[in-house]
Amino acid sequence: MDIKNSINSSAERISPYINKTPVLTSHLINQIVSAELYFKCENFQKMGAFKMRGATNAILQLSDEQKQKGVITHSSGNFAQAIALAAKSLNIKAYLVMPSNAPGVKKSAVKNYGGEIIECIPTLEGRVRTTKKIVEEKGVTFVHPYNDINVIMGNASVGKELLEECPDLDCIVVPIGGGGLISGVALSASVFGNNCSVIGAEPLNVDDAYRSLLKGKIVANKPTADTVADGLKTMLGEVTFNIISKYVEEIIRVTEREIIAAMQLIWERMKIIVEPSSSVTLAAVLKSKQKFENKKVGLLISGGNVDLSHLPFTK
Amino acid sequence: MDIKNSINSSAERISPYINKTPVLTSHLINQIVSAELYFKCENFQKMGAFKMRGATNAILQLSDEQKQKGVITHSSGNFAQAIALAAKSLNIKAYLVMPSNAPGVKKSAVKNYGGEIIECIPTLEGRVRTTKKIVEEKGVTFVHPYNDINVIMGNASVGKELLEECPDLDCIVVPIGGGGLISGVALSASVFGNNCSVIGAEPLNVDDAYRSLLKGKIVANKPTADTVADGLKTMLGEVTFNIISKYVEEIIRVTEREIIAAMQLIWERMKIIVEPSSSVTLAAVLKSKQKFENKKVGLLISGGNVDLSHLPFTK
Repeated sequence: MDIKNSINSSAERISPYINKTPVLTSHLINQIVSAELYFKCENFQKMGAFKMRGATNAILQLSDEQKQKGVITHSSGNFAQAIALAAKSLNIKAYLVMPSNAPGVKKSAVKNYGGEIIECIPTLEGRVRTTKKIVEEKGVTFVHPYNDINVIMGNASVGKELLEECPDLDCIVVPIGGGGLISGVALSASVFGNNCSVIGAEPLNVDDAYRSLLKGKIVANKPTADTVADGLKTMLGEVTFNIISKYVEEIIRVTEREIIAAMQLIWERMKIIVEPSSSVTLAAVLKSKQKFENKKVGLLISGGNVDLSHLPFTK
Repeated sequence: MDIKNSINSSAERISPYINKTPVLTSHLINQIVSAELYFKCENFQKMGAFKMRGATNAILQLSDEQKQKGVITHSSGNFAQAIALAAKSLNIKAYLVMPSNAPGVKKSAVKNYGGEIIECIPTLEGRVRTTKKIVEEKGVTFVHPYNDINVIMGNASVGKELLEECPDLDCIVVPIGGGGLISGVALSASVFGNNCSVIGAEPLNVDDAYRSLLKGKIVANKPTADTVADGLKTMLGEVTFNIISKYVEEIIRVTEREIIAAMQLIWERMKIIVEPSSSVTLAAVLKSKQKFENKKVGLLISGGNVDLSHLPFTK
């Protein structure tokens, strides 16, 4: 696979359907961390998260027959919205398997985009079983939210954009859930970066990616493991595990308190709405200040879809 | 007074000390209102609100002797922060008279900017009395938060910036509290606009400006009147009343529920943090849709300083 060509053609393919998002900076936060931080703001992406990139890239590569039958995915929220919106703009039917405890704001967004929600029990097994059943019944094509090279190549476009705007970044910090975003960004950094390393940020409560890299094989979280960063509960897949093993330098783990404090700092100082899942990146930089001192650091703000009636700071 | 020259020189004077803020749009909100809305985002201004403009312009015009003695103002929050920060960057001592019930986030911001807070009872009379006492004791110069032509001319720079970026706006909707922002924007629209009208947006609960225009003289709110848009409780002054009477076309009043709904729409769809006081503008457009249909409408987002532990949607 020619990584550079593949990312370039994915970026071109999806460009009519996505926003080129801004890169923001904060003088005050730079002072706090003694580094230059560049926030790539996918909270301003269509439907409010980077997942629009991978979903669009995957759907655009379906055959005409597949497009006619429709697509299905399972997701705690943002990828479901992304598939629903991407499918809608291409006039394709979308089925979304969502855990029954997914945030209300995410479910209603999926409905607004014309997607058909099928609820499942909130475990990975529950999602997979329900999805499989619909695929068999309706002959629709399953798009995996992250363990799919087309999705990863679509996500990679965000790394390309960031490095085009900030070519001399020393590193990029990226949230890790299933690994679809960090895989894309790591591939981009390997071909568009100038010696730019990629570092993962993960909630300590669901540190499966950290433990997977340590053990050299994919390990899961306990089914009861929970985090305020609800987009990051998923475990790695074979595709993302292999890319991350090869291209990611390190994973920094952060506590719930650290995630919420970083989120509050971004909201109060930058006046932008970011998800807890996005805030793990700043939390990681705040936690490992020395590592980032005097560096130029990209931070992937993965999304901004939060349920305003359930904010962590109000508890 | 040559309005155009005066605004131009104020804008130039303060430009090293302020941000040129972005103008954002939302496809979805445009669809809802059937109009083209241009949000001028002073929530991204230094210290998080437009008041930085007027405060800086006023302080920069003090004599050397006045600068040595320091400045004082009374404010429910944003203007206090603005004076504190502007004074700090010019190495001038600032005293801030703030009502005892001002939001904690605003008080701590003033302290972070090095300002000295003097608490007063939360009434206009309380503020004035306390301020007068300090002026007499210390010989400091009082800067009125809005009823001051230098403050208004500083604020006017935001209207100039907006009209330079969007020269063919049909109208600009601006929140009304004491009238300092709308006075500045109305003066700007009169000289930089192309037949651009200026419309006020005011909480129904504190509709003193609306009633003042009706009666042809300044009237007050009941001391018990309250609104979620805490920056808009102040009454007009002679200077702002005269400018508003001459240049403002109309004032649209909105309910508390309408303000909160508009704020939630902006947060959820635009992913930016705006104050309730800023959200009265979109609330006014949503309320009077027909008036704005197919128009190009500027909306002044006056600030983004909210106390995240006391958000209206979480109640």
